[in-house]
Amino acid sequence: MASYLITGSSRGIGLALVRLLASKPSTEVAVVFAAARTQTDALTQLVAQTFGRVYQVEMNVTDDRSIASAAATVEKVLAGRGLDVLVNNAGVMPFTPDGIETMSDLDSTFRTNVTSAHMVTSAFLPLLKQGTLKKVVNVSSTFGSIARASRSARAAAPAYKITKAALSMLTVQYAQSFAREGFIFMIISSGWVKTDLGGDNADLTPEQSATAVFDLISSATSAHNGKFYDIFVDGWDFYDGAEVPW
Amino acid sequence: MASYLITGSSRGIGLALVRLLASKPSTEVAVVFAAARTQTDALTQLVAQTFGRVYQVEMNVTDDRSIASAAATVEKVLAGRGLDVLVNNAGVMPFTPDGIETMSDLDSTFRTNVTSAHMVTSAFLPLLKQGTLKKVVNVSSTFGSIARASRSARAAAPAYKITKAALSMLTVQYAQSFAREGFIFMIISSGWVKTDLGGDNADLTPEQSATAVFDLISSATSAHNGKFYDIFVDGWDFYDGAEVPW
Repeated sequence: MASYLITGSSRGIGLALVRLLASKPSTEVAVVFAAARTQTDALTQLVAQTFGRVYQVEMNVTDDRSIASAAATVEKVLAGRGLDVLVNNAGVMPFTPDGIETMSDLDSTFRTNVTSAHMVTSAFLPLLKQGTLKKVVNVSSTFGSIARASRSARAAAPAYKITKAALSMLTVQYAQSFAREGFIFMIISSGWVKTDLGGDNADLTPEQSATAVFDLISSATSAHNGKFYDIFVDGWDFYDGAEVPW
Repeated sequence: MASYLITGSSRGIGLALVRLLASKPSTEVAVVFAAARTQTDALTQLVAQTFGRVYQVEMNVTDDRSIASAAATVEKVLAGRGLDVLVNNAGVMPFTPDGIETMSDLDSTFRTNVTSAHMVTSAFLPLLKQGTLKKVVNVSSTFGSIARASRSARAAAPAYKITKAALSMLTVQYAQSFAREGFIFMIISSGWVKTDLGGDNADLTPEQSATAVFDLISSATSAHNGKFYDIFVDGWDFYDGAEVPW
């Protein structure tokens, strides 16, 4: 009977996660708030097909007024119940092909990938406190692991890597602050996925990633609070479900 | 005969580092560019006392035009020689006493602590390439270590911790990009220092910190590239000169 809110749900992993959640029995998933800045046909169709299980919420994660308005809408729909799981999935990965010294989008990438997660978490915290699961997942990538930076040296996405490292520390700060209240804040690397962001050569389908992310969210306990995990995907040595070093 | 540029040099560790460098024999330190947004009496006096060894440069590290103007000034003074060492020391540590969910200065802190280091490094890269030492030091703190976050849980400075974690990844990205050209990019934790930022209860004087930072810069080799070090201060178990985990 859990309630979920997923940001960045108009496409990619976010959309696949909303679709997966909507397919679960209502005893397991009561309602999914699919937050997105823009409506897409895919999301609109999904909402129509799921008869109220998926509730579309307009939200620009870089705009605090838009977030506040979305939180008010969600509160009204929940009608006194809490929000159980928040997945901060919205994000961008700009490329800097001509060398890091030419990077000009660091501030805007930070706002979209880090400040957004903070603002959304902060705005939904009162509803999350009323929830039973109190899980907040910040979607990241092993590209955000400083310890593993040598493995991703060829990927010309410095702003993405820098902001995802910051997102790890943001998550840990929240984890420390709300551990006593029973919250579980975790970072999940969603893998390299065939989406607009990941491209066609990626390893996984959005459905594979979404399934693995959902499994990780479902099995998370207080031991996961403030930690960074890779997804587990059967058949891939890479996606071993292990903790990712900072 | 090395040349140095220190940002945030109007006070605190930056000022102490400029003073220390100016005290070295000119065979060791040729010129020190003391970059600061504002003039302070302390810095102006130091410039007057050092007869041209210290060159004051006006620079607002959050303003790319100001940085470009400063780079043009430094290039003119160097007159064909390169810049050997850049120390990105400017930074802020705002406090968030009422809980991380009330943090409202994440973007501005990121710009001052991270984007500034990127913009300054990028602007001075042509001069650094002409230098003989090719060392770039980003000043940080063990508060920026995600692995050690539990040790600093009581310090209500989430924006500082989050942005310093991002600064680590920025440094690693530069280190990877310019290793082949002989650059050494490193992160140095300057310790808890009795400055406006550190407060009166801190462990070290600015002079102790500056001496330790200088020793670390001087002894750094290519093995230090892309790594995070604590300073070494005799008599302190804490300040052991060891590598800091991410």
